[in-house]
Amino acid sequence: MENGEKPPQEDEQLYRIRHSLSHVLAAVVKELYPEAKLGIGPPIDNGFYYDFQFAEEFSANDLKKIQTRMRKVLGRKDAFTLKVMSPEEATDFFWARNEDFKVELIKDLAAGGETEVTIYEHDNFVDLCKGPHVNNTGDIPARAFVLDRIAGAYWRGDEKRPMLTRIYGLAFNTREELDAYIKQREEAMKRDSRKVGKELELFTASELVGRGLPLLLPKGATIRRILERFIVDEELKRGYEHVYTPVLGRKELYEISGHWEHYQESMYPPIEWEGQSYVLRPMTCPHHFEIYASKPRSYRDLPLRLAEISPMFRKEKSGELYGLIRIMGFHLADAHIFCTTDQLYDEFKAILDLINYCMKVTGLEEVCWYKASLHDDQKGKFVDNPEGWALSEKHLLDILKEQDRKYELSVGDAAFYGPKLDVQIRTVSGKEETIFTNQIDMVLAERFNLEYTDADGRKKRPLILHRSSIGCLERTIAFLIEFYAGAFPTWLAPVQVRILTISDRQIDYAKNIRDRMLQSKIRVELDIRNESLNRKIREGRLQKIPYLLIIGDKEMEAGTVTARNRDTHNQSALPVDKFIQDLAGEEKTYSLKLNCA
Amino acid sequence: MENGEKPPQEDEQLYRIRHSLSHVLAAVVKELYPEAKLGIGPPIDNGFYYDFQFAEEFSANDLKKIQTRMRKVLGRKDAFTLKVMSPEEATDFFWARNEDFKVELIKDLAAGGETEVTIYEHDNFVDLCKGPHVNNTGDIPARAFVLDRIAGAYWRGDEKRPMLTRIYGLAFNTREELDAYIKQREEAMKRDSRKVGKELELFTASELVGRGLPLLLPKGATIRRILERFIVDEELKRGYEHVYTPVLGRKELYEISGHWEHYQESMYPPIEWEGQSYVLRPMTCPHHFEIYASKPRSYRDLPLRLAEISPMFRKEKSGELYGLIRIMGFHLADAHIFCTTDQLYDEFKAILDLINYCMKVTGLEEVCWYKASLHDDQKGKFVDNPEGWALSEKHLLDILKEQDRKYELSVGDAAFYGPKLDVQIRTVSGKEETIFTNQIDMVLAERFNLEYTDADGRKKRPLILHRSSIGCLERTIAFLIEFYAGAFPTWLAPVQVRILTISDRQIDYAKNIRDRMLQSKIRVELDIRNESLNRKIREGRLQKIPYLLIIGDKEMEAGTVTARNRDTHNQSALPVDKFIQDLAGEEKTYSLKLNCA
Repeated sequence: MENGEKPPQEDEQLYRIRHSLSHVLAAVVKELYPEAKLGIGPPIDNGFYYDFQFAEEFSANDLKKIQTRMRKVLGRKDAFTLKVMSPEEATDFFWARNEDFKVELIKDLAAGGETEVTIYEHDNFVDLCKGPHVNNTGDIPARAFVLDRIAGAYWRGDEKRPMLTRIYGLAFNTREELDAYIKQREEAMKRDSRKVGKELELFTASELVGRGLPLLLPKGATIRRILERFIVDEELKRGYEHVYTPVLGRKELYEISGHWEHYQESMYPPIEWEGQSYVLRPMTCPHHFEIYASKPRSYRDLPLRLAEISPMFRKEKSGELYGLIRIMGFHLADAHIFCTTDQLYDEFKAILDLINYCMKVTGLEEVCWYKASLHDDQKGKFVDNPEGWALSEKHLLDILKEQDRKYELSVGDAAFYGPKLDVQIRTVSGKEETIFTNQIDMVLAERFNLEYTDADGRKKRPLILHRSSIGCLERTIAFLIEFYAGAFPTWLAPVQVRILTISDRQIDYAKNIRDRMLQSKIRVELDIRNESLNRKIREGRLQKIPYLLIIGDKEMEAGTVTARNRDTHNQSALPVDKFIQDLAGEEKTYSLKLNCA
Repeated sequence: MENGEKPPQEDEQLYRIRHSLSHVLAAVVKELYPEAKLGIGPPIDNGFYYDFQFAEEFSANDLKKIQTRMRKVLGRKDAFTLKVMSPEEATDFFWARNEDFKVELIKDLAAGGETEVTIYEHDNFVDLCKGPHVNNTGDIPARAFVLDRIAGAYWRGDEKRPMLTRIYGLAFNTREELDAYIKQREEAMKRDSRKVGKELELFTASELVGRGLPLLLPKGATIRRILERFIVDEELKRGYEHVYTPVLGRKELYEISGHWEHYQESMYPPIEWEGQSYVLRPMTCPHHFEIYASKPRSYRDLPLRLAEISPMFRKEKSGELYGLIRIMGFHLADAHIFCTTDQLYDEFKAILDLINYCMKVTGLEEVCWYKASLHDDQKGKFVDNPEGWALSEKHLLDILKEQDRKYELSVGDAAFYGPKLDVQIRTVSGKEETIFTNQIDMVLAERFNLEYTDADGRKKRPLILHRSSIGCLERTIAFLIEFYAGAFPTWLAPVQVRILTISDRQIDYAKNIRDRMLQSKIRVELDIRNESLNRKIREGRLQKIPYLLIIGDKEMEAGTVTARNRDTHNQSALPVDKFIQDLAGEEKTYSLKLNCA
C-alpha cells in the first residue's frame, strides 16, 4: 500500500459471482435431491453458502458430486433474470414448490410493509432474492470455486428452529487467487494462536473460571513477563514514570470522564458495596488523571509521562471471545503524557520512535502500519478548537511523513477530542486488526480540571496524549504466536535451550551444563529420559525450542556441546562457554534470527 | 519470647487502674464543671476515656488543670465501693443529678431485662458501672498516667445524637512504661506508612477512585516492581513456575472450593453478565487448581509449584481501610505446591527456607516470627484424617525446631483442612499482625478432583501446600516503610542517588555522571537547581535518599564525586567508577547497610 492510499474497494463483480454461485449450488442440489428444502444462500467474505434441509442423510462426501455438476452447468451460460411478484403471488409460487422457509421469509417481508418481492431465475431454478447477479453463468470462472465444507446451522440462528445443513463454497476471480487463499488459510490454521497455544502449553481456558478469562500457563506467562519487563525497562529509559493503579474505580470517576455516558455498553455492570458503585475499569485515563491531580503541577514538571501495565476489562459478547485475542480482561502497556502545546511535536515523535522500536524488536514491523484519523467539518462530531486541530494534525502528519513506514489516512474518523493514530496489523488469516490507538486529547484536562502553573504564573491546561507502545500484552502475545507460528526468536522463547543426552553416561555432564546456563539466566530444560536421540530431537522440534544441545561421549570428552539450530537445522560443535556467550549476545540484541549454530 | 511460649496474659490490675482513672477523671470534671453531663468512661488499650457534655466551651488547654487536680486527689486514697440498686432507684438517683445519658442507659438495661444495676462510688462521685476497680485511689500510680487529648464523639456513636467531648488518658503501671509508650507512639507516628508515604510521594488516594484503592505513585511503584522482580526471580530459581490467572472467576468455582459457603462475607457481590455470575476472587487456589487439572499429571510431574503475583479482592469495611495496610484489592506473592506425601517434608522445609531468606533480605526478620496452628480433638472443626494430621504436624514441628528462629504454638487454631503456619510481625506501634499464612491442605484436591498417576499406575490425590513468600506486596511495602521510616536500604530505595551541583559550572559534568549511572541501571536523580548546597542537602535528606553526590569544581577537576552517606553522614571523595561499582555491589548483595561512603 502506498503512503496515504486507501485500501482497494470491495470487488463488485466478485460479489456477483459469489452470489450467483450460491444459486447455482442450490439449483444443482434441487436437481440431485428434489426433496431438499431451501433456506438462504448469501455471498460471504471468501465465497458463499447455502442452507438446505435434506430429506435424507447428507455428508461432506456428497460435495464432490455437486461440485462436478456445478462446473458442468456453468458452461451452459444460463442467464439470470429478475422478476417482480406481489407477496401473495410469491407465497403461492413457493408454497406450490413446498419451500416452507421461503414462504416464511415472504410472510415477514409482507409484514414489514413490502408490497413487492423480487426473484431471480436461471436454468428453471427460482429463488427469492434481491440480487445482484452476473449476467449469465458463463461469467463465473468455473475453476475458481470449490465447495469447501458443511456445517449445521439453525434456521434463522434460532436453536428452537430446525437444524439445516449449510454448504460452504470458496470463490475468487481466478484459480490462482483461490489457490493462494486456500494456502494462506492452511498456513493461518497451522499458526492459529489457540492451536499453537495448546500445543506449546502457552495458555489454557476453564469453563469454571469463565469464558474469555484465559489462564497463562508457565510458558505463556514467561513470554508475558519477558514482554512486560522489556517494555517497562524501555519506557523507564525513555523518561516514563511507571505507576500501579487499581482495576476498580467508582462509577463517578467514569461519569466525569464521560465513559459512563458514551462507553457504558463496553463496561461490565458495577459492583455495589456500602452505597458505592465500583466498576471494572475499561480505561486507565481517569486513574492517571487522579495521580496528575494529586499535587500542584508546574511547567517544570512537564512533560509528565505516566505509564502502567494496566489491567482493564471491556465487555465482549461471549460468542465473540477468542483465545487471547478477544477476552474479557487484559493488560495494556498504557501511558498518558501531560505536556504543553510546545512539547506536543517532540512528545508525539517520541511515541512513534518507541512504537517503531517495539515493532522492530518484536519483528511485527513486517505486518504493521499506521492509520491516521483526522477530523472533518461534521458539526458536533469533533471538539470546537480549530487552532488545536490545525496544530495537532499538522504535527501528526509531519511526523508520519518523516517516518520510513507506510501509513494511511482516514479523514473524519478522529476521536471527539483530537486526532488519533492507530497501529494496524495484517493477521495471518489476512484480516486487518487495530493493535492499539494513540490519541491527542484537547478535552479531558478540562473535564478533570487538570492544570499547571506556567512560567508566567498563570494556570493552564495540559494537552494529554493517550498512547500504548506494545499494545495489550495478551493480544500482542497472540499476534506473536501467529506471526512466528510459535517458533519465537531467542529473546522471546519461553524455553531457549533443551539439553538432550544420548545415554545415561552424560547425565551429570548435562546437569552441570544446565546449572551453568541457569547462572547466566538462560531458560533451559533437560531431557535425560531413557529415549532415543531421534525421539528427543523430534519432540524438541515440535516444541519449537531454538536450540537443542546434543550431548554424547564425544562432547563430554571435548567439553563441548553440539548445538542444533531450530530454523536452519545446522548442527555445530562448540565449547560450552562460547555457546552461552553467543546465546546471551543473541538475546541481548533482540536478534530475530538464530545465529548460535 | 521463648519458643513455643504464649504471649503474656492481659494485665488485670492495669485494667482496674485504667477503669478507676476514668472515674477519677469524671469526678474531677464534675467538681470543676458542675454543669457537665456524664456519658460513658471505659478503660481502653492504652488507658481510658470519658465522654462529657460540657455546658461551656472546652478545649485541650483545659486538660492540664484537670490532670493536676486528679494527681492531687489520688493521694487521698478514696475507697471504691459497690452498691446495687433497682433500675427505678437508679433512675431516680441519676435523674435527680440531671444525668440524662445515665438515665437513658438504665432505661435500656431495664428494657433488656435487668432487675438490678450496679454503681460504684468514691469521693462522693457515683457512676453507673459494672467494675471492677482498684480498692482505693491510692492504688493508682499517680505519675503513670496523663490526660492525652480530646476528640468529638457522638453519644452512642449515632450521628443524630448529641456530639460529646471525649477526654482520652494514657495509663500504665509505672512512669517508665508510660514514657516508653509515649516514645514508641511518637516513633510510630513518625514512621506511619501513610505519613511517610505522603512525604516521600510513594502512594496517594483518591475519593473518586474509591477508598481502599490506593494509587502507587512512581516511587512507590518502583518499590513494588523491585520486590516483585526480586521474588519472582528468586522463586523461579527455586523451581517455582509462575503463571498469570485472572482476578475474576465464576461463582461456581468458589462454590466448589467452599469459599462461597464459608468465606462469602469476605467477597464482593458478583458481577452478572450474560447469565453468569463473576466474582472478584478472594483467593487464587481454584485458578491454580484449574491449571493443575488442565492436563493429566503423573508422579513425575510432582512436586508442581505454581506461583503468581496474584491480584485479589477481599471485603473490608470502609471504616477499617488504612493506607496500604487494609485495602480492598491487593497482590499476593502466592503459590500452590502439589506434591506427594513423601515430598511434604522437603517442600515445607523449602517454603520456610524461602521465607527466612525473604525476611533476611528485607530486614524484617528483626520483627517477625512464626506461629504454628495445630488441630485438637474438637469434633467437626477439623477434617477426619488422623494419619494425615499426625504426619503433617510432625513434619511442621520438626522443621520449626530445626530453625534458628522463634516460633509460638497455637493448638486448636489449625485450618479445617490442615495445620497452618503464620508469619507474624510486631508493627512499630507494637501491634501484632499476621503478614501471611502457609497451610497444608488435605481436602481441596478431593473437592476439585485433582489427581496424579503414581508409579504403580494408580490414581492418587496430591497434597496441596498454600503458601506465600513475601506476603502481599502492598502490605509488605507498608511494613517496610514503617520499619525503615522510609530510609530504605539501597536495593529497595526508589531513588538511590541524587547528584547535587554546587554551581552551574558543574551541570554538564553532573549530567555526564548521571548518564553513566543510568547505564549501570542506578536509580539516580539530578538536582541542578540554582539553590544553595545546604538547601539541596537538606531536601535530599528529607527524601531519605541513600547517597547524595556533591559535585563542585574540585570533584570535576579530579573526576571524582563526594558521596554523602544518609545514615552515617560520612562524606568521602571517590572516583566515579569506584562509587558506581560499590553501589552495584551493595545492591546485588541486598546490603541493609549503606557502605559506599
